[in-house]
Amino acid sequence: MKNLSQRDKKHIWHPLTQHRTAAPPIGIVRAKDAILWDEDGKTYIDGIASWYTAMYGHANDDVTTAVSTQMQELDFVMFSGFTHEPAVELSERLIEILPDNQAKIFFNDNGSTAVEAAIKMALQFHHNKNDPRDTLIAFEDGFHGDTFGAMSASGLSSYNGPFEDFLLKVERLPVPLDDNMEEVVVQLKTILENNACAAFVFEPLVQGAAGMKFHSPTGLDMLIKICQDAEVLCIADEIMTGFGKTGKNFASGYLQNKPDIMCLGKALTAGIFPLSITSCSQAVFDGFLSEEVHKGFFHAHTFSAHPLGCVAALASIELLSSPGILKRRAAIEKAHQQFASAIKDNPKVTEVRCMGVILAVDLNLKMDRYGNLRDQLYQFFIKKGVVLRPLGNTVYVLPPYVITDDQLDTIYNAIKSALEHF
Amino acid sequence: MKNLSQRDKKHIWHPLTQHRTAAPPIGIVRAKDAILWDEDGKTYIDGIASWYTAMYGHANDDVTTAVSTQMQELDFVMFSGFTHEPAVELSERLIEILPDNQAKIFFNDNGSTAVEAAIKMALQFHHNKNDPRDTLIAFEDGFHGDTFGAMSASGLSSYNGPFEDFLLKVERLPVPLDDNMEEVVVQLKTILENNACAAFVFEPLVQGAAGMKFHSPTGLDMLIKICQDAEVLCIADEIMTGFGKTGKNFASGYLQNKPDIMCLGKALTAGIFPLSITSCSQAVFDGFLSEEVHKGFFHAHTFSAHPLGCVAALASIELLSSPGILKRRAAIEKAHQQFASAIKDNPKVTEVRCMGVILAVDLNLKMDRYGNLRDQLYQFFIKKGVVLRPLGNTVYVLPPYVITDDQLDTIYNAIKSALEHF
Repeated sequence: MKNLSQRDKKHIWHPLTQHRTAAPPIGIVRAKDAILWDEDGKTYIDGIASWYTAMYGHANDDVTTAVSTQMQELDFVMFSGFTHEPAVELSERLIEILPDNQAKIFFNDNGSTAVEAAIKMALQFHHNKNDPRDTLIAFEDGFHGDTFGAMSASGLSSYNGPFEDFLLKVERLPVPLDDNMEEVVVQLKTILENNACAAFVFEPLVQGAAGMKFHSPTGLDMLIKICQDAEVLCIADEIMTGFGKTGKNFASGYLQNKPDIMCLGKALTAGIFPLSITSCSQAVFDGFLSEEVHKGFFHAHTFSAHPLGCVAALASIELLSSPGILKRRAAIEKAHQQFASAIKDNPKVTEVRCMGVILAVDLNLKMDRYGNLRDQLYQFFIKKGVVLRPLGNTVYVLPPYVITDDQLDTIYNAIKSALEHF
Repeated sequence: MKNLSQRDKKHIWHPLTQHRTAAPPIGIVRAKDAILWDEDGKTYIDGIASWYTAMYGHANDDVTTAVSTQMQELDFVMFSGFTHEPAVELSERLIEILPDNQAKIFFNDNGSTAVEAAIKMALQFHHNKNDPRDTLIAFEDGFHGDTFGAMSASGLSSYNGPFEDFLLKVERLPVPLDDNMEEVVVQLKTILENNACAAFVFEPLVQGAAGMKFHSPTGLDMLIKICQDAEVLCIADEIMTGFGKTGKNFASGYLQNKPDIMCLGKALTAGIFPLSITSCSQAVFDGFLSEEVHKGFFHAHTFSAHPLGCVAALASIELLSSPGILKRRAAIEKAHQQFASAIKDNPKVTEVRCMGVILAVDLNLKMDRYGNLRDQLYQFFIKKGVVLRPLGNTVYVLPPYVITDDQLDTIYNAIKSALEHF
């Protein structure tokens, strides 16, 4: 009898994988809270909450109960011409916790499609006003997804070579830091002068896939202000940052100037299946109202606002601010800071930074994004029973809020060992 | 206390909806088999299986039980570096029922992203061979989704006006019918001579969103052969047609020449939440194997191969060929044919056609895709307790396999009334 790793090889094509050189995948049979079990009974601490989704722990009882109950009542109905309680209630709860200017909720299925919808909204918003604009502004090294529109906004293009000729027109901006703000402002103004800019797309405060790189809220606030003065719609991609990871419900909570459009996903459903949202201000929504039918937004995904996703999201939002989770979020934040202090002077560490439950350690090593050394480091952690996926030479921890102190210590110790070993 | 329709208005932006002119959505509170219940207790027969997804009936016990059980064991784990039984088993089952040449399964989240992945695979396949190609071939009036890549392949562009300048390069071909095949072949050959064509994207045999329009399998076979001889990858978008709707498991089952790549979605999960698949031949997969990491396919969606979707799909595939469902599929097919014979000479009917459980009636009326008359017809059916969504002047029925004879008769009677009334 073949095991999962062997059977997998026959028919499965994995994402982000060069199948000629990659190690066989590990067969996982169970997950609970912060722990994964493989088919041989070995356990792993899920140090990145399965791509920052399972924030309330795997198989969270509140979430699974909500889904099981909903499946018996109303599994799904198409969302044109019909509505349902889970979608309505989720829209009401989200509007309570999103920045004040957010007014409308449009449903999509995953992060890439939330960004596609946001970009299409921005392009059509200007088109509907007879002011067609063809350019997007985005940060260098941003990541917004893998479909053509989302891929266009992404600056992390070393693996997008085959698609470079097929992308939307995008002007790139460095992220604003304490020492470059004036330059970035000048650059933005030049872009605005020389192009018909429709939207500015950004991951607010933390660029996830780039290696959990932080930038200045003051700087971002300035850029948003300048864009909004030029009627360029500002799209905050909070797919990674949303739902408490930066310490506030949304990274946009650190900003004075609120985005016109926001993208939410990943932890939205507590990490059990895809659902995403593109929210927007009343002004954006109003730009599509007309007696002319075609000025509406004729974009749809079949499973838009699927009730199971909506109840999972409602249970998650309830958990987000529950006393137990708030306490753990604070504990993780404190533990991260202590660990950061402890290793910041290690010669192998070029920078260590924390925000909310995000901890990132830049190593003094040359590591390609999907290179051999990066793979060795990944396997080093796996051997220690810890799942961490280094992004280039950055090791980051973004654990489920339910992780225990002991499990955090195991992760920190694995990183300390790596600093000795590599 | 406001009802769902009223609460919905405050914060929800519906897909495919001009909110200034659209009627308020109906609040649905329950669904079982082929029936939807609204918040006032009124019932509706779901005549199109909620966008052709809920083929085994809403809240099918086999499907919901499989999902509930799986949630307790392994809700989700990221699919790079890891694998799990539901994904492996699903890949094995799919390969058994897909056309013989399909060898590998790549997971996505919805129809649009399955098509995006297919197009990206085709472009990169040629790029990896140092034979870059920039053109797609697609049918006029095809529909493949709403993200930028999928939207490019779609020919139904009356509502894509704002995005026309942002699409991939596509050459369009009429669908092959009995009376135009030679012309279409000449046109295809001209396209191939004058462009560097990467892929031919098509809905095999039935163009869904275009109004359930059928075309010739012989003709499509010829086009596929010509494309494959020119090393143009053939992408069969079976998101609508897949899983039994045309009478065979896949519409490609009617073809001699098998597609290189296939897209599956919708009914894949029995209509409870999104999961989609891009499958391909061994030759396509092999085009990405290399010692050079970047020749791999660096495309991913967070919830790729989510275990809950995989077990829902496994339960669905089991149902697809179960004796009870096979019997109902045959009964629906027969009933459709009888109804088609009964109305084919009605002066209000220009054409009526059937394939498998698909019935389409073209009305002798001028109706815009989302125009007023179309809306009136939609509301006419709703008043009769039947959900049918006319596509332009085509009324189609694509019911859940579990629909009863009486429910089918109610649908047919509603259509007959419409023929008298409009």
